[in-house]
Amino acid sequence: MYKINENYLKLQGSYLFSNIAKKVAAFKSENPDKEVISLGIGDVTQPLCPAVIEAMHKAVDEMANAETFHGYAPDLGYEFLRSAIRKNDYLARGVDIALDEIFISDGAKSDSGNIGDIFSKDNRIAVCDPVYPVYVDTNVMAGRTGEFVKATESWSNVIYMPCTKETNFAPELPKETPDIIYLCFPNNPTGSTITKDELQKWVDYANQVGAVIIYDAAYEAYISEDNVPHTIYECEGAKTCAIELRSFSKNAGFTGTRLGFTVIPKELESNGTKLNALWARRHGTKFNGAPYIIQRAGEAVYTEAGKVQTKEQVAYYMNNAKTIIEGLKSAGYSVSGGVNAPYVWLETPNGMSSWEFFDYLLANANIVGTPGSGFGPSGEGYFRLTAFGTYENTLKAIERIKNL
Amino acid sequence: MYKINENYLKLQGSYLFSNIAKKVAAFKSENPDKEVISLGIGDVTQPLCPAVIEAMHKAVDEMANAETFHGYAPDLGYEFLRSAIRKNDYLARGVDIALDEIFISDGAKSDSGNIGDIFSKDNRIAVCDPVYPVYVDTNVMAGRTGEFVKATESWSNVIYMPCTKETNFAPELPKETPDIIYLCFPNNPTGSTITKDELQKWVDYANQVGAVIIYDAAYEAYISEDNVPHTIYECEGAKTCAIELRSFSKNAGFTGTRLGFTVIPKELESNGTKLNALWARRHGTKFNGAPYIIQRAGEAVYTEAGKVQTKEQVAYYMNNAKTIIEGLKSAGYSVSGGVNAPYVWLETPNGMSSWEFFDYLLANANIVGTPGSGFGPSGEGYFRLTAFGTYENTLKAIERIKNL
Repeated sequence: MYKINENYLKLQGSYLFSNIAKKVAAFKSENPDKEVISLGIGDVTQPLCPAVIEAMHKAVDEMANAETFHGYAPDLGYEFLRSAIRKNDYLARGVDIALDEIFISDGAKSDSGNIGDIFSKDNRIAVCDPVYPVYVDTNVMAGRTGEFVKATESWSNVIYMPCTKETNFAPELPKETPDIIYLCFPNNPTGSTITKDELQKWVDYANQVGAVIIYDAAYEAYISEDNVPHTIYECEGAKTCAIELRSFSKNAGFTGTRLGFTVIPKELESNGTKLNALWARRHGTKFNGAPYIIQRAGEAVYTEAGKVQTKEQVAYYMNNAKTIIEGLKSAGYSVSGGVNAPYVWLETPNGMSSWEFFDYLLANANIVGTPGSGFGPSGEGYFRLTAFGTYENTLKAIERIKNL
Repeated sequence: MYKINENYLKLQGSYLFSNIAKKVAAFKSENPDKEVISLGIGDVTQPLCPAVIEAMHKAVDEMANAETFHGYAPDLGYEFLRSAIRKNDYLARGVDIALDEIFISDGAKSDSGNIGDIFSKDNRIAVCDPVYPVYVDTNVMAGRTGEFVKATESWSNVIYMPCTKETNFAPELPKETPDIIYLCFPNNPTGSTITKDELQKWVDYANQVGAVIIYDAAYEAYISEDNVPHTIYECEGAKTCAIELRSFSKNAGFTGTRLGFTVIPKELESNGTKLNALWARRHGTKFNGAPYIIQRAGEAVYTEAGKVQTKEQVAYYMNNAKTIIEGLKSAGYSVSGGVNAPYVWLETPNGMSSWEFFDYLLANANIVGTPGSGFGPSGEGYFRLTAFGTYENTLKAIERIKNL
C-alpha cells in the first residue's frame, strides 16, 4: 500500500491567503451591497506597462510562424533575458554574476519552495518572525520543522528570529546555530529593511557558522534609501553563503504573468559540491522553463522604455504607501514600513488580536488587510496593509479607517 | 554546517537530452558545413495555431488595462479553462471529473516530477523500461530508488517492467508489488499503447494491491485506433487508484508555451486522507499558477476553430510518423510505434548499441535521434525517432537513412 508524505498532515490550517479569501467571500455574499476594498494580499492592480505589452504582442506573433516559433527553452532560460538581468541587476551595482549563475523561473514563490529540494531534510532553518508563510510551510512539507506547538504557535525545530518593535523590526543573530537562514529585505510582511552594514553582519555570520542564506529580494525595486543593499552580493563574501531569489511580480506587475529568477554563485559549495550544479539538475529535471512569450516580457522590463514605465508604477504604489502611513499616523496608529517597501505594518489598537482586528476592519470599514499573526507568533498584535491598491481605493480606505 | 540532499549525488550523468544537446553542439562546431536534422527530442516545429494566437493577443491586451488586468490566478487555475477541460477531455468521453479535481500547471514535466512531493519517501516505484527519464530521476532525487547498480544499469529499489519486442512493447504486471506505478500511454519513448481492456487490468491490479498509478496521457491526441483509452478514467475503478497527467505540449504545440494539468479524483484516498487535498495544498503553497495569457491560450485549444486547427497539426505529425515507418521498413529496419503516437521505435542494426547507432547516424547521415538505452536498460539496442520535425526534413532524413 502506498504511503503519503505524512508531513503534510502537520500543516496548520490552509495557506493564509486562501483563508482570508474564504472569509472575504463569505462577507461579500452576506453583504452584497458593501464595497469591500482589499489592501490585503500583495497583488498588484496597475496594468502591465506598454513596453511589456508590446514585447508580448511581438513574441506572440513569433509563435505564429514556423521560422520564428519557439519550442522548449534552454534549461537555464533564454540568454537574452539572463544577459539583461546580469547587466542591469548586477553589473550596474558593481556585482559580477555569470550568465550560468542565473536561473529563470516561473516566480519567486515556486523558487522559494522548490529550493529546499537540493538540501537534506536534516537542516535546521531560521526564519524571521513574522515571515512570508511559504518559507515555513514548504519546510513543514519537507519534514524539517519538527512538531507544531500549540501553546507557542510555533514549530519545535525552527529557529524564530523575532522582528518586533523592540528589535526595530529587524532580526538579531540567533542564539542557536541554524543551517539555512531565510532573509527577506525589504521585508514582507513588515516593510522594514536593513542597511548594507547590517546585512554584511549576516553574511559574515553565515560564512562563519557554515550556514546558507536564502535571500529573498522580491521587493528590491521599492528601495528608496541609499544605504540599503539591492542585492546581497553587494556584501563581501556573499557568494560563498547566499542564494538570491528575485521576482518580476512587484517591480513590473507580473503577479499574473509569472516570472522570476534565482541566482546561485558557483563559489557556493558544500564539501566540494556546487549548489549551482544541484539546482541546475533540479531545474532541468523538474521544470521546463518559463514561456518564451513571458521571457520576452521580462526582457522588455530592462529596456529604456520599460525601466521608465515600471519605475512610474513603483512610484505610484509608493505614493499609496505614503498615503497609508500619513493617514494612519494622523488617526493615532503606530506604524512602520512603507519607506523601502510597499507594505505598511501597524499595531492593532486597543489590544485587539490580529484576527480580531481583521474581522473588525472587514465588518466596520469593509477593508481587507492581513493579520500579523498569520505570518508567525511575533506578528500577533500587528496588521499588514499593502500599497498595491489603486490610489482612489487607498485614499477611500484610509478615510474609512480615520472615521472608525 | 548545512547539508545538501545527498540523493542528487547518486544521479547518473546529466539529463539525457542535455547530453544529446552537448554531443550535437560539438558535432556542429566541428562540422559547420553539415546540415543536421533533429528527430531527437520531442519538441514540436509547427507554429501555434491561429485560434491560440488570437486568444493570446486578446489576453495580452486585457493585461494592458486596469479594468481587465489579471493578477494572481485562482489556486487551481481559471475556471474557464478547467470547465473547457472537464467538458471536452472528460464529459465528452463519458467521464465525470469535477472542476476541483483539475489542477492547471505549467506542464506535465513539472507535474510528473512534483507529484512525488505528496508521497512518502518510503514507497517503491515501478516503471516501464524503457521510460521517460524524469519519472526515475525525480525519484532518485527524492531518495526512493536505492543505489545505482552499474552492472545492470538500474536502480536497486526500482521495479522495472520491461517493454521489449518480446512483450509487444507493453509492460506485464510486476512480480514484486509496487506502491507507485508510472504508466504512460500512448508511450514515450516506444510509441506503443495498450487497449482499454488491458489498461483495465492495471486499474484492477492497483486497486487490489493498494498501489497508486501515475498515468501520463500527454500523447492522448495521437490515438488513432478505437479501442485505445484517451483517459485512464474510462476504466472502472480508476478514480480510486489513479492520478492523470495531461499536457498541451504535443496536442497543441505548447512546448515553449508551457501548460498542463493534473487530475486527482476525490475518491483517491490513503487511510482517509484525500490525495486531492494534499496536491491542492502543494499547488497553493509551492506554485503560483500558469500565466493568465497562457491559460487563455489553453482555453482556445477547445474552441471549434482551435479543435480543427490542432487536429490538423496532429495529422501533420502523424503523416511524418507514417513516412518514417514506411521508409525505415523499406530500408530493412524493424520498427514499431507511430500509429497512436508521434514516436517511432526501431531496433539498431547489426548489433550496434544505442549510443553507437546515435554516433553512427549523426556522423554519417547527420541525423539526431535518441538512444533507447537513455530511457532504461531494456532500451538498449533500440532507438527513438520523433515525428515532430517538418515534413521536408523528415523526408530528407529518411532518404539519408535509406542511402546509408
